[in-house]
Amino acid sequence: MRAIVIHEAGDLRIEEREALAPTAGEVQIRLAAGGVCGSDLHYYHNGGFGSVRLKEPMILGHEVSGTVTRLGEGVSGLAIGDLVAVSPSRPCGQCRFCGEGLRNHCENMRFYGSAMPFPHIQGAFRETLTADASQCVPAAGLSAGEAAMAEPLSVALHATRRAGELLAKRVLVTGCGPIGCLAVLSARQAGAAEVVATDLSDNALDHASKVGADRVINMAREPDAMTEYAAGKGTFDVLFECSGAQQALASGIGAMRPRGVVMQLGLGGDMSVPMMQITARELDLRGSFRFHEEFAMAVQLMQAGRLDVKPLISHTISLDKAEEAFVVASDRNKAMKAQIAFS
Amino acid sequence: MRAIVIHEAGDLRIEEREALAPTAGEVQIRLAAGGVCGSDLHYYHNGGFGSVRLKEPMILGHEVSGTVTRLGEGVSGLAIGDLVAVSPSRPCGQCRFCGEGLRNHCENMRFYGSAMPFPHIQGAFRETLTADASQCVPAAGLSAGEAAMAEPLSVALHATRRAGELLAKRVLVTGCGPIGCLAVLSARQAGAAEVVATDLSDNALDHASKVGADRVINMAREPDAMTEYAAGKGTFDVLFECSGAQQALASGIGAMRPRGVVMQLGLGGDMSVPMMQITARELDLRGSFRFHEEFAMAVQLMQAGRLDVKPLISHTISLDKAEEAFVVASDRNKAMKAQIAFS
Amino acid sequence: MRAIVIHEAGDLRIEEREALAPTAGEVQIRLAAGGVCGSDLHYYHNGGFGSVRLKEPMILGHEVSGTVTRLGEGVSGLAIGDLVAVSPSRPCGQCRFCGEGLRNHCENMRFYGSAMPFPHIQGAFRETLTADASQCVPAAGLSAGEAAMAEPLSVALHATRRAGELLAKRVLVTGCGPIGCLAVLSARQAGAAEVVATDLSDNALDHASKVGADRVINMAREPDAMTEYAAGKGTFDVLFECSGAQQALASGIGAMRPRGVVMQLGLGGDMSVPMMQITARELDLRGSFRFHEEFAMAVQLMQAGRLDVKPLISHTISLDKAEEAFVVASDRNKAMKAQIAFS
Amino acid sequence: MRAIVIHEAGDLRIEEREALAPTAGEVQIRLAAGGVCGSDLHYYHNGGFGSVRLKEPMILGHEVSGTVTRLGEGVSGLAIGDLVAVSPSRPCGQCRFCGEGLRNHCENMRFYGSAMPFPHIQGAFRETLTADASQCVPAAGLSAGEAAMAEPLSVALHATRRAGELLAKRVLVTGCGPIGCLAVLSARQAGAAEVVATDLSDNALDHASKVGADRVINMAREPDAMTEYAAGKGTFDVLFECSGAQQALASGIGAMRPRGVVMQLGLGGDMSVPMMQITARELDLRGSFRFHEEFAMAVQLMQAGRLDVKPLISHTISLDKAEEAFVVASDRNKAMKAQIAFS
Repeated sequence: MRAIVIHEAGDLRIEEREALAPTAGEVQIRLAAGGVCGSDLHYYHNGGFGSVRLKEPMILGHEVSGTVTRLGEGVSGLAIGDLVAVSPSRPCGQCRFCGEGLRNHCENMRFYGSAMPFPHIQGAFRETLTADASQCVPAAGLSAGEAAMAEPLSVALHATRRAGELLAKRVLVTGCGPIGCLAVLSARQAGAAEVVATDLSDNALDHASKVGADRVINMAREPDAMTEYAAGKGTFDVLFECSGAQQALASGIGAMRPRGVVMQLGLGGDMSVPMMQITARELDLRGSFRFHEEFAMAVQLMQAGRLDVKPLISHTISLDKAEEAFVVASDRNKAMKAQIAFS
Repeated sequence: MRAIVIHEAGDLRIEEREALAPTAGEVQIRLAAGGVCGSDLHYYHNGGFGSVRLKEPMILGHEVSGTVTRLGEGVSGLAIGDLVAVSPSRPCGQCRFCGEGLRNHCENMRFYGSAMPFPHIQGAFRETLTADASQCVPAAGLSAGEAAMAEPLSVALHATRRAGELLAKRVLVTGCGPIGCLAVLSARQAGAAEVVATDLSDNALDHASKVGADRVINMAREPDAMTEYAAGKGTFDVLFECSGAQQALASGIGAMRPRGVVMQLGLGGDMSVPMMQITARELDLRGSFRFHEEFAMAVQLMQAGRLDVKPLISHTISLDKAEEAFVVASDRNKAMKAQIAFS
Repeated sequence: MRAIVIHEAGDLRIEEREALAPTAGEVQIRLAAGGVCGSDLHYYHNGGFGSVRLKEPMILGHEVSGTVTRLGEGVSGLAIGDLVAVSPSRPCGQCRFCGEGLRNHCENMRFYGSAMPFPHIQGAFRETLTADASQCVPAAGLSAGEAAMAEPLSVALHATRRAGELLAKRVLVTGCGPIGCLAVLSARQAGAAEVVATDLSDNALDHASKVGADRVINMAREPDAMTEYAAGKGTFDVLFECSGAQQALASGIGAMRPRGVVMQLGLGGDMSVPMMQITARELDLRGSFRFHEEFAMAVQLMQAGRLDVKPLISHTISLDKAEEAFVVASDRNKAMKAQIAFS
Repeated sequence: MRAIVIHEAGDLRIEEREALAPTAGEVQIRLAAGGVCGSDLHYYHNGGFGSVRLKEPMILGHEVSGTVTRLGEGVSGLAIGDLVAVSPSRPCGQCRFCGEGLRNHCENMRFYGSAMPFPHIQGAFRETLTADASQCVPAAGLSAGEAAMAEPLSVALHATRRAGELLAKRVLVTGCGPIGCLAVLSARQAGAAEVVATDLSDNALDHASKVGADRVINMAREPDAMTEYAAGKGTFDVLFECSGAQQALASGIGAMRPRGVVMQLGLGGDMSVPMMQITARELDLRGSFRFHEEFAMAVQLMQAGRLDVKPLISHTISLDKAEEAFVVASDRNKAMKAQIAFS
């Protein structure tokens, strides 16, 4: 079977790997769709990010769906032929944080396609994937592409749940890549009265509008529009910061009401933060990282028709041309979510 | 001007009252629509409920909307001709609980149409109402009937907010009168994955379906359906108990998951509660009573098209035939919300 | 080795059992102290409680401490000779609720000395106990009796944590058996400004005073004192209901402020609850059941000298006279916590 | 009567002012003690801080106590001769945030001795103070100095309550000036299992020890001690950052467990914050600013003997030598809280 392997920055290869037979509790999956995530792009362009660096070749990918082809011993609840969304989150279940129910903070996490430990955790961009049955959520009624969106949607749902109840609240989303757009969708689903989205790219903002942003602001063209908006219509109760950009965080903080909640999803390094505003307005800045139980929720909400992620799948590219998917996904003025069709 | 006055159980009269000129900070309103609430019906049928009893004639009504006709001195933000939803909640702003932001627990609350203190707090079912400008929320874009639904919708929104975040949760609503149906609508708006509603009346359940219940169960005809449902599809995360009936509370508690939240909105007296289940499953039984800041939220959510309460307005009856509205509102097999058209 | 076995109501025997060698990850413990709990007394006097009934002989006991005598393979962090408090809580770590961190709601819980499943879960009142190393918390610096108090203290700490922050709050404790007295201690430790305790027994109330109750009220002699107190000094923010008695719950609810929190720890059956007060004052009635991570906290707080449970150990009786411990523990006018000395 | 007036940086004068007669609802107070706060020092040394600058002479001071000498009309609950702690917090009670119970965010706040609006809000360092009766909390049983500590203690209590429940938690306090030391005291009172305090001054750390820090670390002498400590004994659940120094915040964040809570009390400008750690460990960074209802709690906790602030009052200096109090209060190696004796 073929897999998409990153060797070093700029060196992406389609290579042959041996498919693994499912052991007890596992299933074998013929991969259908795989979405290219920002972290995949970091490996592709830069060989990593921050202190996370490639040290050996690694199969990429962690946003995947596929069809069950073989069942290991003792697997129940799944049948051959089922379309499943496959969660890349594989906590140990034994450590202190797993014990406390904080599985996304597992001390021994093996998250698909991550160079964090060494040897690296190999990813899921492979034609045949062998996974634990517990990672597989039946996705009947969804397209393969939608099922593969369960992963980034889970990231947004996790942050939304951490933000507390949103009913009738005013929400700001800064950074409208896939995560930001899914935060728009998720905040709308959670009952926000108004969702304002900002970005520097019109393409990104167009997608945010399509999934329910009530107002979009291009901060490059209208640098003062958000501040004016907040002054007129009112400051925000909740901010989902999805850009990882210092400027977006700072300007967002400036538009918050006292006791407002700032959810930080965007990954960035050290940032200059207006601490005086956080202190004096008693803001609540909370990190949000990955997810766990939200994965099944994501599938369920899509199946129930509560959320429609389809407008965010901008490109579907066959495995043969996998690198093209990485290139197009890198162009924020053209793409939103690019997915690779594995079968 | 005419007002709807209850003298004692069964003695409802349309009487002349003098309209009051608006003083500083007040507005005068020509009433448009007034919804008949369960407490209005208690006064009409029984002269009160529990220890709350009529001791003098009282104008009924607290779910009203109308058009601004005169502005008192210093009023801003409202104009003559504006359709407004009028909040019946008038806390003192000075007591300990107002100071803590718990205005629905104001020690000196003057809530329209309530016999709780003596002299009673006169209600809002009158052709000309003089109210504080702060009670009036502009309702442009809504019908008068919708605007008058802001009050019961606020009750449901208040309970929904108190229930915490509902995203992707499984919700049970017991009792599908207007408050129960609005709880269905509100829980859907807050992102519930599934909403199941129970009642003894098919008419009530039909309305629950119309506003988004995924499954309705007539407990009279299918006494075991809810238990079977919970056993199959899974127990509930949140229960909105809107019937005030002991049996509904007890059966609902039996269908909850550990750490589930039971919101009690329905008003009832002492009830036999399965405390062992509450303790051993660590349920969280929370009372919910009235509202305050949710009133403006209710109007805003309706204006933004997030919620549609229109399917719940089953009858609109002219002031001349006001008593008919009370009679029809009492018939759970025919009516949902009956409103009186004042102009 | 000897073990304390209940055969049926009133038939308590000291019997020989074979000691088990520790397997990998386990340790063998020479038991030191074992506290008699209310549930042990229920088995002794009534053969069970509610639907939980003895169907076969069962070793009792779940409040124990002892000295490590043998280490199974791979055990680290414990040494032979260590005094340890042994947690009776043995969740599976695999089920849905373990996954969510709600280990006290484990679907496959094996809690020492419980007749709930069949075959029953055998208890810890035995001279030689083989336990998982993860159940053992080193208790250096504590007496064996104090270490054995870690279990009931954990119950109180769990409820206190579930009650939210208590700093400067007014707390009421109804029912001053061991759990109620430990709730007094725990509420004081959590910063309560004032703790009032009620019971029908002066002996119980004397113990509550010793561990920090600011005011104790004998409801038998002064039936109106609590209501008068609440009227004068102010209603309560938090109630720890530790009696399981309907009257205590109802009178406690009557003394709560709006938005007050009622923690139900006492186990009882169906109770008549003043639901109108819960609804109208928006009280929050939360069950609290067992514990998990609080066990290590309990040991740590005792070691750090933050809490002193010693005044609550009223009797220490040798294993030879074990039944005497059950008899004395049953007399609320004489005993608080009776413990059995195993070595 | 004399008052302590700041004219510009370095120009502090004792001036005559006219005492005001109490109007309805007010009382006149003969001031007893007044604590010098960090903001007073900012005006004294720098004429302000950040964008808050002196534009006219301003009476300083907001940590005061005194004796009631005259009662305005309609005042109840206070008597001539009562020692009272006087809260400097004077919210309007009318604005949106007052309505929500967030009185420390009042849009029209008049906090004693603040140059924030213009004309400035004059302070409380005056021999005769006329205040609203609602600002005065009877402080019988306390010394005048302790009563004047109610204000900074309220700041610490407010932050502690915002941190959520602390029972058995591991707490870090960075910056051990008066607010940091009071945070130590407050965290201990709220049940923290362990409190570690850091500073650069041994004098500050000595005071932290006196009020209950289990371990103090001088970051100047032992720059790695905190990191080593966290690695050994375990990371922290809660951080109270009381220094306003970027380095303290950054090193504190580095020592937090996943989902840890960082309370920011120290006032500083823009700071470089390790956002990646906040995001990936899902930390919760919350501002804390002033207080309101905590003022009465502070007095009550001191009266009940729950907290002892006396070790923190390092200097008491007569009004004649007021400037000396400002000088000594500025020396972190000598002083903790310096108070001025007004009578």
